[in-house]
Amino acid sequence: MKYAVLKFGGTSVASPELRERVAEKIIATKNEGYLPVVVVSAIGREGDPYATDTLIQLAKQTYRDLPKREMDILMSCGEIISGVVMTATLLAKGHPAVFLTGAQAGIITDRQYSEARILKVQPQSVTKFAQEGHIVVVAGFQGVTEDGDITTLGRGGSDTTAAALGVALNAAYVDIYTDVEGVMTADPRIVAEARTLDIITYDEICHLAHEGAKVVHPRAVEIAMQKGVPLRIRSTFTDAPGTLVTTAGEVYKGAIDITKDRVVTGIAYTPGIAQFKVSVGSDPEGVKQQRRMFRALALAGISIDFINVLSNVVLFTVKDEMAEKTAKVLENTGFKPEVITGCAKVSAVGAGMSGVPGVIADIVEALTKDDIQVLQCNDSHTTVWVLVKREEMEKAVRALHRQFKLDQ
Amino acid sequence: MKYAVLKFGGTSVASPELRERVAEKIIATKNEGYLPVVVVSAIGREGDPYATDTLIQLAKQTYRDLPKREMDILMSCGEIISGVVMTATLLAKGHPAVFLTGAQAGIITDRQYSEARILKVQPQSVTKFAQEGHIVVVAGFQGVTEDGDITTLGRGGSDTTAAALGVALNAAYVDIYTDVEGVMTADPRIVAEARTLDIITYDEICHLAHEGAKVVHPRAVEIAMQKGVPLRIRSTFTDAPGTLVTTAGEVYKGAIDITKDRVVTGIAYTPGIAQFKVSVGSDPEGVKQQRRMFRALALAGISIDFINVLSNVVLFTVKDEMAEKTAKVLENTGFKPEVITGCAKVSAVGAGMSGVPGVIADIVEALTKDDIQVLQCNDSHTTVWVLVKREEMEKAVRALHRQFKLDQ
Repeated sequence: MKYAVLKFGGTSVASPELRERVAEKIIATKNEGYLPVVVVSAIGREGDPYATDTLIQLAKQTYRDLPKREMDILMSCGEIISGVVMTATLLAKGHPAVFLTGAQAGIITDRQYSEARILKVQPQSVTKFAQEGHIVVVAGFQGVTEDGDITTLGRGGSDTTAAALGVALNAAYVDIYTDVEGVMTADPRIVAEARTLDIITYDEICHLAHEGAKVVHPRAVEIAMQKGVPLRIRSTFTDAPGTLVTTAGEVYKGAIDITKDRVVTGIAYTPGIAQFKVSVGSDPEGVKQQRRMFRALALAGISIDFINVLSNVVLFTVKDEMAEKTAKVLENTGFKPEVITGCAKVSAVGAGMSGVPGVIADIVEALTKDDIQVLQCNDSHTTVWVLVKREEMEKAVRALHRQFKLDQ
Repeated sequence: MKYAVLKFGGTSVASPELRERVAEKIIATKNEGYLPVVVVSAIGREGDPYATDTLIQLAKQTYRDLPKREMDILMSCGEIISGVVMTATLLAKGHPAVFLTGAQAGIITDRQYSEARILKVQPQSVTKFAQEGHIVVVAGFQGVTEDGDITTLGRGGSDTTAAALGVALNAAYVDIYTDVEGVMTADPRIVAEARTLDIITYDEICHLAHEGAKVVHPRAVEIAMQKGVPLRIRSTFTDAPGTLVTTAGEVYKGAIDITKDRVVTGIAYTPGIAQFKVSVGSDPEGVKQQRRMFRALALAGISIDFINVLSNVVLFTVKDEMAEKTAKVLENTGFKPEVITGCAKVSAVGAGMSGVPGVIADIVEALTKDDIQVLQCNDSHTTVWVLVKREEMEKAVRALHRQFKLDQ
């Protein structure tokens, strides 16, 4: 019998009614002949005493600078409490079930408290209990170091737990249950015609997630990708099949000409960006100036993005809230930057665009036709980024969605 | 440098103001030159989301029969949360401090979930952090099995954790901080003249605790006694020295005639008891009947106490709530018991009474003089028990307190 890993986020387990629904999903999976392994996040309802944020508040009220080691131990209780309650829900429905902490489930991590990396999974307890006929419920978001210190995995940590267990158990699939029906071609609040994708590659969903789409944590996708364990992004609240995340071979199989099938898979966006334009003079002086500038920014701990070097001008972006500090650092180093705050990055992601000529030209043309000013653009083999003014962001997302016929 | 173990109960850590006070006690111990190891219980305020009872409620609401294994994992969060918050309080006052779960502190137990016994203590992490200059805060009430399952130690579990750590660290003393000033000669709500004892033997406090005095868990005393680690029962709320618990040699040293010094140390009581009187006929038939009766009670899982066999009559007690079931079992086995429900056991405890003739006679005389009916009495080398009617319990406690001059 094959394993199936099911991960439920904090909003999915926040009330008895929701936990009933979650239990039904789990039992349905069992009835389909899988050995279900369930990963839960802390109860996510705001103000709930066992929500991660509430636990953090409790500690911070006493001491703002609580060491991360202790903060991790404290936070780990959130997933333990929701996991035990979820186990109780399954037992109440007459299904043998057992709960394991991250440590008990063999999630071994490094010592980077608050954003530990999983080093390996030792799933002996999981397999023992599952083979005995138990539904195994595992606390997400947490692990343990080799010498017994409790760690947490950072943002999206429960997704990562689920993917790592999926790989360790060689699971048939890892279902990431959430409050949306799957991965969409764009944010439906911006694009009314946005569709749920049936299928997407690991690479594409990683890029969409990195570019601001909040469906699954990229680290979880990277882990699943390593062994080719299929992920499914599904809704706790409906019976829709969701989006299957798999290899490009699976996604594009049967496509005679993938450029006709799908160049762009989805559109993502990130607001709150500031663009910097810095003149560095012409070479050979320019190269030295550039080096001096980048070193000054690195020393100041400023992380920059979207770097374009155009003859004697350097363009890059920082987060809006870092704009003032960045300007000061540059001025102190002898530069006179031009700054545009309030920008947004709009990204078109698609494995099918790799090697397809003219995609970036199509994008710039589509935006210009709609009177959207392109402040900067850039591309890699699966993503095109465009920097626009924040007030034109929604318009840009819609224009690109239309341009690549994502509504069809 | 010697270790000092300080244990704080749930009512001592229930608010920021109380935790401040607790921190001062700990820091004072550190300033006296000890390495403090602090054991905390879950925040004990009723209705607090992290109180043990609240966590139990949370699970029971979902499933009444949650397995003890899962219940223990859930309950362990109570002490983790209060321990981390206590650690934060010490750090906020500028003292290096570190938190350890029961598992991390090396509290290894058997697998009897909900009332596990400590098998051994592996205090390497405690000593490492303490030697580095940290105040070490340990979650009370919890441990871990050899194969990593989390357990809890049952009622009084944090006292037991403290005593076990005290023994493992060869501590100078184990301070059990509570909401009373120490061990008293009797319950002050009943006896206005009751005094706090300066000193008491391990054996005496064990018996007092077994007989209903709620100051420290007997198991904790037994553990401390094994290695002669002194316990002190002290108040979190005052600076009183409290009661020192130590060996009889220490308590009675210098006493020329211990009977003059102290025959009885304290008076305890337990209400809610039912007395059974069963005729079993005369020997040799009587012995067979007795055996048949005791076997029937044992098979029915009824635990009996205070057993007196007087020629052809057997007397014993059960808890009031078991009276009906007990009567039924006896009737079904062919006996006709006489039952008096609503009794109370009053106990006089004192290591000094061992070998002193006439103690039981003094007690019966004192009670009779005050018109208290003695339903039954019994003695061991350090305790005399008297069974009285519940409505005469307070009067009996006062009479014995007076008889043995415990107010002086």
